Amino acid sequence: MQKYARVTASLITDLLRRRSRQSSRLLSSTHILDHPSSSSSSSLMSSSSTHPLSVATINDKVLKCEYAVRGEIVTLAQILYCNIGNPQSLGQQPITFFREVLALCDHPAILDRSETQGLFSTDAIARAWQILDQIPGRATGAYSHSQGIKGLRDTIAAGIEERDGYPADPNDIFLTDGASPAVHMMMQLLIRSEGDGILCPIPQYPLYSASIALHGGTLVPYYLDEATGWGLETSELKKQLEAAKSKGINVRALVVINPGNPTGQVLAEDNQRQIVEFCKQEGLVLLADEVYQENIYVPDKKFHSFKKISRSMGYGNEDIALVSFQSVSKGYYGECGKRGGYMEVTGFSPEIREQIYKVASVNLCSNISGQILASLVMNPPKVGDESFESYSAEKDGILSSLARRAKALEDALNSLEGVKCNKAEGAMYLFPRIYLPAKAIKAAEAVNTSPDTFYCRRLLNATGIVVVPGSGFGQVPGTWHFRCTILPQEDKIPAIVSRLTEFHKQFMEEFRD
Amino acid sequence: MQKYARVTASLITDLLRRRSRQSSRLLSSTHILDHPSSSSSSSLMSSSSTHPLSVATINDKVLKCEYAVRGEIVTLAQILYCNIGNPQSLGQQPITFFREVLALCDHPAILDRSETQGLFSTDAIARAWQILDQIPGRATGAYSHSQGIKGLRDTIAAGIEERDGYPADPNDIFLTDGASPAVHMMMQLLIRSEGDGILCPIPQYPLYSASIALHGGTLVPYYLDEATGWGLETSELKKQLEAAKSKGINVRALVVINPGNPTGQVLAEDNQRQIVEFCKQEGLVLLADEVYQENIYVPDKKFHSFKKISRSMGYGNEDIALVSFQSVSKGYYGECGKRGGYMEVTGFSPEIREQIYKVASVNLCSNISGQILASLVMNPPKVGDESFESYSAEKDGILSSLARRAKALEDALNSLEGVKCNKAEGAMYLFPRIYLPAKAIKAAEAVNTSPDTFYCRRLLNATGIVVVPGSGFGQVPGTWHFRCTILPQEDKIPAIVSRLTEFHKQFMEEFRD
Repeated sequence: MQKYARVTASLITDLLRRRSRQSSRLLSSTHILDHPSSSSSSSLMSSSSTHPLSVATINDKVLKCEYAVRGEIVTLAQILYCNIGNPQSLGQQPITFFREVLALCDHPAILDRSETQGLFSTDAIARAWQILDQIPGRATGAYSHSQGIKGLRDTIAAGIEERDGYPADPNDIFLTDGASPAVHMMMQLLIRSEGDGILCPIPQYPLYSASIALHGGTLVPYYLDEATGWGLETSELKKQLEAAKSKGINVRALVVINPGNPTGQVLAEDNQRQIVEFCKQEGLVLLADEVYQENIYVPDKKFHSFKKISRSMGYGNEDIALVSFQSVSKGYYGECGKRGGYMEVTGFSPEIREQIYKVASVNLCSNISGQILASLVMNPPKVGDESFESYSAEKDGILSSLARRAKALEDALNSLEGVKCNKAEGAMYLFPRIYLPAKAIKAAEAVNTSPDTFYCRRLLNATGIVVVPGSGFGQVPGTWHFRCTILPQEDKIPAIVSRLTEFHKQFMEEFRD
Repeated sequence: MQKYARVTASLITDLLRRRSRQSSRLLSSTHILDHPSSSSSSSLMSSSSTHPLSVATINDKVLKCEYAVRGEIVTLAQILYCNIGNPQSLGQQPITFFREVLALCDHPAILDRSETQGLFSTDAIARAWQILDQIPGRATGAYSHSQGIKGLRDTIAAGIEERDGYPADPNDIFLTDGASPAVHMMMQLLIRSEGDGILCPIPQYPLYSASIALHGGTLVPYYLDEATGWGLETSELKKQLEAAKSKGINVRALVVINPGNPTGQVLAEDNQRQIVEFCKQEGLVLLADEVYQENIYVPDKKFHSFKKISRSMGYGNEDIALVSFQSVSKGYYGECGKRGGYMEVTGFSPEIREQIYKVASVNLCSNISGQILASLVMNPPKVGDESFESYSAEKDGILSSLARRAKALEDALNSLEGVKCNKAEGAMYLFPRIYLPAKAIKAAEAVNTSPDTFYCRRLLNATGIVVVPGSGFGQVPGTWHFRCTILPQEDKIPAIVSRLTEFHKQFMEEFRD
């Protein structure tokens, strides 16, 4: 079924990187025509190997950038993808109401046709009309305002208000093609040179390291505390901030991912208050990755946006600069392919806002289907709407199944010798620690790879299960982990558990000291 | 109807820029808390004006970037938008077949329902099935391969082959959210510092200047020759290249926009051969903006892709590095809001291709609806398909109407005193030269603005017609122009012509020397 299979584990990236380093070495001992500006010998260029570019002459920020969760494509039979947060690729079905509205907005000509009444729910039809009326000329094929269609931003702001209990301003919303472009936009704004630092959690989602590298800044790491369920200690933030300052780094912002990726923890309210206080005291922009806000699997934790927390502390726009990233790719909807999302930007001066607006303008606008979907996830069907019951059943079905899958995988991992896995409170991942025998570590060294990559590669070869080695996210030196999504459909989980268990036993047997 | 109106002319940008310069001046004479890394006085930060960022401390590449065709939003009644290439915002209807397929791919659950047969054409249903079968798991909600869905790239490559008569490789196609992100990606790759230059036409579409500024490079201008219908002389290219080299600039690429934006010319085949030869000789990457390839309005001109031209000269991958940008936003389809497009990347070494792939991966993938649409525009209904007749009627209706509008506006402009307008052979714009009286130039100076901006602002105030001053695109110093789209619906053209004519007469009367 998955003929066209993709493996994006960093073990593959790793292989490629080594290969590419080898080829650079080869290249550097070869005669390469230098860039022509220095040559009047342009007639030489008619020889048959005149690539105007070489890896030595492209932007080295591009070379430095790494992206662990995606890599080269490999085609392998019987693969079980546990590497990417891409739910629908593993069989999760889209929410019907959302897709009905998107289809109707894509082809409004059918809205007046009688057959449409039989095919679509009445509230989807009503919602499509409502959205079309918010678009000037009902033109879903037109560029929108650079921040996104105003009516949709109104809807999103209302959804944020309902979620947080504090006001939200549609003018603070920038609709984007998923959360990634929004993160790039902020990094572009904040980073002037290597002297500018961004505090990032370790482990982190590699979008952050990649974006910081592309924009030429410095990643200032802070470690999450695995022993306390990936806790975020402000003492650690303070320590790393001071260390960076002492090296002359101008730290500009703090990235917090909540719920955590790859770590799956949900921050406690009190901890969030400390983080807000820290940013306020240190004058740091708080970049809050809140794309997993709907993915909470434990009854004792609840999602609180950093905006809600800061407002509840009495801090307003004058006190803290805060960006909240949201995406349609995660949650129970998991609409990765639609590339929808937004950032809510508060606490910036009008001059800076104008600059953010300008950068948004250079890409004209984000895609309208993604914009519509972002408004839908922030304003889903309500009690009394025709779709409410089926919508709720779909949503609850997905979320409760994810919770069961998280628990099953967590239990399975914790039952393995030398594996310790924190609870997946939220998001879509488990990040177990693997205590590898010295003999396995030596075997990895012998093939010139990191021990976690060695483990993951063996796992892939033996079982077809793809996970991402911890090295791609960062980890405390000398510790080893991997990231495993909880996304395979529930009927696949027992096979994953038994294959993984069997593999792990044999691995530990093979390398027992 | 257009309650929520946007004016994006650079005259507005201009106003804002002046305002923002004023505020920076104000700011720089005020005490600004420097970035906290240098301050142990973080308790000071609890005062009420602690924006952690100021315009003085953000990335100055962001500040330097300008984008003439978009600006601030203003709400004005009775506005006639002739400023942006955004056809559907002005009433152009989408192509039915394309929207049918998109709607069906958005909500595949209805494909098997009997009502669907009555609502959608049979070939749209068949095409939707075909596309769904190209998507692993039929998951339109999943992230795709970073370059785009393989089956869609196959379709696009086949469409390019049919267009050019030369082979195209699906692995050379990178699907993107419109052409803009593709341009950014290439600039990111090519530009390392201010020492790297990109040859760009003047006048140019400001995406290029904005992207070069954002990535910190140097725009090396070459002038299009207005006297020869915006001809592109290789002697001018050579001259500007040498001048740049003598200043120590390492020129890396040549941007060519064909058909031209804002100039509307279509390059002659022979001219294109000279350009290819020039790039080959000088070892420059040829960045070919070919987004208006379907917009040709004169019988004696035809679109030829630069890839076709270079292949017809016997040049292959080893001879020239070439990037062709295409978009779903232009052509007869004008689907700006869908943000679809691709770049075809040929003649780069495998190492560089790997780097381009990596950069594409950092944003995961472009939106799937845009990807589908890109495949549709490169493979529209064929003779014998149920939709072929209606599709052709829609397409021909739009293109012949655009040709009539171009001619009507061109004639009207050329009938004005002191206005000279080259033929709109293609694209969506006219770029008339206005010979302004000395008194008008003085009046502009008196209000501290450029003469073309002065003219455009007066035009807007007097008539509600929004055009973009030539300064936003660049022009030979001392000459003045504006860009006017040919996109208002045909029934609006007489009103535009008469309002413009009346305004122009009064303007010339008022400022007659």
